[in-house]
Amino acid sequence: MYSDVPWRLIRSLSRKKHRDKTGLTVAEGPSVVLAALEAGVELRAVVFTEEFAGSEKAGVLRQAMEDHGRFGRLFVVPKELYSKMSDTKTPQGVLALLRFPFRFTRGEPKPTWAQDLDIVAVDIQDPGNVGTLIRTGGFAGATRVILCGQSADPFSPKAIRASAGAIFSIPVTYQEDCTGLLSQMHASGQRIYKATPRDGIMPWEADLGAPCALVLGNEARGLKEEILQGPGDCVSIPMPGGIESLNVAMACTALLYEAVRQRMKCGV
Amino acid sequence: MYSDVPWRLIRSLSRKKHRDKTGLTVAEGPSVVLAALEAGVELRAVVFTEEFAGSEKAGVLRQAMEDHGRFGRLFVVPKELYSKMSDTKTPQGVLALLRFPFRFTRGEPKPTWAQDLDIVAVDIQDPGNVGTLIRTGGFAGATRVILCGQSADPFSPKAIRASAGAIFSIPVTYQEDCTGLLSQMHASGQRIYKATPRDGIMPWEADLGAPCALVLGNEARGLKEEILQGPGDCVSIPMPGGIESLNVAMACTALLYEAVRQRMKCGV
Repeated sequence: MYSDVPWRLIRSLSRKKHRDKTGLTVAEGPSVVLAALEAGVELRAVVFTEEFAGSEKAGVLRQAMEDHGRFGRLFVVPKELYSKMSDTKTPQGVLALLRFPFRFTRGEPKPTWAQDLDIVAVDIQDPGNVGTLIRTGGFAGATRVILCGQSADPFSPKAIRASAGAIFSIPVTYQEDCTGLLSQMHASGQRIYKATPRDGIMPWEADLGAPCALVLGNEARGLKEEILQGPGDCVSIPMPGGIESLNVAMACTALLYEAVRQRMKCGV
Repeated sequence: MYSDVPWRLIRSLSRKKHRDKTGLTVAEGPSVVLAALEAGVELRAVVFTEEFAGSEKAGVLRQAMEDHGRFGRLFVVPKELYSKMSDTKTPQGVLALLRFPFRFTRGEPKPTWAQDLDIVAVDIQDPGNVGTLIRTGGFAGATRVILCGQSADPFSPKAIRASAGAIFSIPVTYQEDCTGLLSQMHASGQRIYKATPRDGIMPWEADLGAPCALVLGNEARGLKEEILQGPGDCVSIPMPGGIESLNVAMACTALLYEAVRQRMKCGV
């Protein structure tokens, strides 16, 4: 009865090897799937559990599927079968199968700012943190998120979920060589601001209204020497409480808030 | 051989009922236990796994235990016994048993600011979010964190872990009646700023240098009408990216960053 549900394929996509081979990935959860539909991302298939299919949220999704178009097939399956496809501990009952890089049926997302506001994430190893960084880019309208070095795959189901759908509105790319990227950005006139826990300029001293890139490093080790020695300025969020308690996503949130503040031409 | 290890007691403390009955809770993970020691919090017992006991981090903790004093007994146990006490999926091999409210052997933590900067968290239901809010208070030197309404217990092992140790440097209290609390704060001259996703003033328009309280609401529903109607102003973090992607901890991070910026008298 459910023989046409591609559950083996979907399950296999928790592994990068299979995502790279097929060019497919999975977006799970009602708000993430809704964000994909609203951004006009083409979905290959949508899967509901029977339980979810009767919910109010499913009604919202069905409407979005009608309004926004191309979504392949909808499968409604028992939760036992669904749980074979889900990589979450408490499955939310809805997931979508989709190609990456994403295909936008109504064109790529429009940039928010005339001047670039890029996030460069270096060696961010946890997929949840990679997704959360993309999420922070979403509120600020970051121009793009560039993952470098040994960063986790932003197109893993876990990172997509953590992005809370922001991955569908910001171009996300990967470039292994971070020093090369930063030199190139610097040469093209973009300001480079490297987040360090201390000894940098204050965020409000940085010119975040100019075309700029915020560079964030590994969760435990921060940015490597090679990058600290390269072009640009170090910027540090003041921590008067004396506790270095900001994680990489919180640091990015504070820096992006400062960029938004400066760009909205208030308070500067 | 391990008959004197209070593992049943420690395990029971994942439940609020047992915490309230005994007045005890658990702090788990090397950085959290280190933060407790450095803050001078009295620990009843510390438990290492045999594996952890040989690590570099264990050396740092042993030194802190020597330097900072009162920690009761140290137990070194096999990881099978440890895992019975831990409520994490990937136990980090070190936990401490401690009283709450915490007892500070060298006096309460000193406030960072002359003017109060309070966080009022209303109906925050996830213990991880409660802990993360306390964590954000840590970098900014918040005066206190007050949990209201149906908020999760800040003294649960999960919330303590999520606080990344900030719970040991900021007074954290509970007050059920939030409207009463806010009226009282307002009457005493404290500014009340209520975080809403839209229609509020910009954060840089708020006077966060004055004695103030930042009020944050439930993860899904925000602040209830009763509180919105009460004293104070609504404040909204601008989201030019068009994506309402900030969670409660990110919103608090941005507001606290703005408060720090204003208080450091730069950029205003």
